[in-house]
Amino acid sequence: MDAPNGLGFVDETPADIKSFFDSAPPLKNDAEIRRKLKEFIERNHSSSENGRARRVVCVTSGGTTVPLEKRCVRYIDNFASGHRGAASTEYFLKAGYAVVFLHRRRTYQPYCRSLPEDPLLECFEVTSESNITVQPTHAKAVKEAISEHHAAVTQGTLLKLSFTTVFEYLQMLQLIALSMRSLGPRAMFYLAAAVSDFYVPWESMAAHKIQSGSGPLDMRLAEVPKMLSMLRKVWAPMAFCISFKLETDTKLLLEKADMALRKYNMHMVIANELITHKEEVVVVMKSGNITVRRDKTQATADIEDPLIKLIVDRHSAYISSES
Amino acid sequence: MDAPNGLGFVDETPADIKSFFDSAPPLKNDAEIRRKLKEFIERNHSSSENGRARRVVCVTSGGTTVPLEKRCVRYIDNFASGHRGAASTEYFLKAGYAVVFLHRRRTYQPYCRSLPEDPLLECFEVTSESNITVQPTHAKAVKEAISEHHAAVTQGTLLKLSFTTVFEYLQMLQLIALSMRSLGPRAMFYLAAAVSDFYVPWESMAAHKIQSGSGPLDMRLAEVPKMLSMLRKVWAPMAFCISFKLETDTKLLLEKADMALRKYNMHMVIANELITHKEEVVVVMKSGNITVRRDKTQATADIEDPLIKLIVDRHSAYISSES
Repeated sequence: MDAPNGLGFVDETPADIKSFFDSAPPLKNDAEIRRKLKEFIERNHSSSENGRARRVVCVTSGGTTVPLEKRCVRYIDNFASGHRGAASTEYFLKAGYAVVFLHRRRTYQPYCRSLPEDPLLECFEVTSESNITVQPTHAKAVKEAISEHHAAVTQGTLLKLSFTTVFEYLQMLQLIALSMRSLGPRAMFYLAAAVSDFYVPWESMAAHKIQSGSGPLDMRLAEVPKMLSMLRKVWAPMAFCISFKLETDTKLLLEKADMALRKYNMHMVIANELITHKEEVVVVMKSGNITVRRDKTQATADIEDPLIKLIVDRHSAYISSES
Repeated sequence: MDAPNGLGFVDETPADIKSFFDSAPPLKNDAEIRRKLKEFIERNHSSSENGRARRVVCVTSGGTTVPLEKRCVRYIDNFASGHRGAASTEYFLKAGYAVVFLHRRRTYQPYCRSLPEDPLLECFEVTSESNITVQPTHAKAVKEAISEHHAAVTQGTLLKLSFTTVFEYLQMLQLIALSMRSLGPRAMFYLAAAVSDFYVPWESMAAHKIQSGSGPLDMRLAEVPKMLSMLRKVWAPMAFCISFKLETDTKLLLEKADMALRKYNMHMVIANELITHKEEVVVVMKSGNITVRRDKTQATADIEDPLIKLIVDRHSAYISSES
């Protein structure tokens, strides 16, 4: 079991991390991601919001997968709808941040949370004049989704990057962190993605589909090295860092969140339970814990509204203290 | 290793199967599914196509998941885009069949295969008059998707049912099979879904999220009992049954397809490889194998076009021989 050492950092060794990255299949679109990031950071670095340089947050969202076979048929998936990340992205954009939205493919997208699962087939119809029209009940939601989403992308304040496997996710997070390093304390990481804890190292992975018919299957999974310490110590040491702790067991939750805060030297850990995570979260900080609740007097209110307001305030204080 | 017994059936015992169903969490919308199926089968049973009673095919599509925890955060997933099932459904509808499309949530839907991943955000824009319009490059594909899909659902020849876990899938397949039993040889099962081979029995599943930080994770997975023998022997013994065999290892493929044909007494096994499955498949039958290839002279031709033609012919012959 990892224990906090004297520095409050983890005892994952650089060798564990090097071995993870060495064993990872290389990113397919590495050059394109680097180019997009460079443009995005440069543009927002030189733009301003209310007379001050624009802040940039990397929001991670959705779950990562772990392939069990090289020619991937089977994989272990971490469930996450991506609702938290998509909603938070909207509130960060509203607060004037530029957002790198690092998300699992086919999870919730910003401004599309209130749409049905398959909006094309469920919201549209073809009229007798063979025009495509949106059904009146869905018109408002569909119009807002398309216009707000396009506006953010067109204005250059939203960059969407997608991943599937934990190998893709951690390599992309590293690229993003290194490119945001130059922003100093105005950079933020809001790590809402559900990252796999266990993986099969690429070199020990089955080359072909695992065969059935021979009785039970025994698997040994290695722990994914925690990259939070790399992010804080090496990749972007000045950035404001927020991680998430999701547990199904209430008793463990705050204890583990507090441990993560100290172990990885986070600025905040947001503790949430699977069942109540849309109603209530606990923001765990060195200065103490704050419980944030959704405004229940409004049916459509999001918990991310007060949560992002609190985070923006704390980020402002952090920027002041660092400059 | 299972070996064919004298009857050509599997040696899975009824106890294995009973234990699987007993351990499965009950279907949440059981009553609604039964009602929809009853209506669908009755309507199509009494309707006719070219003067003959309409045939009904159950197309299964996409991969099933296996939860690793009861409050599901992690699960093992079988990758399948659902492209084969969605394309085949279109060709079955074109051939006059009614289709029960039993698919994994968020996989390909019939008539939507040529659309981008997120059609709402990628195909539409809001004009200055704040109307929603489809971008000209996507207009044809979007219009066809919406109109053809709505037509099939409205005419009552397409019933869509969705699953996520292997528990849901197998319980729903049983309900469908029992309700299609009355159609005798005019019923067909086209089992293109990628069904999990291994699972964690519900009673031995972790109640809470598996904790990391204690070194490698060892897992023991039990084999999912093969339900094909139940389908053939008990649920719908007169139905025409087609299963699929996907392998990444060419050497194993035909051998395993042939074994499945005999072991489960299928009428056809469609053997495909992960890499070439959109170009070529081998239809394995007791009377011999037929290789089906996509018409490469047409860029947009689907392999499912000649494949479903062949299947419809063989199904016709089967119906004649049985009546």
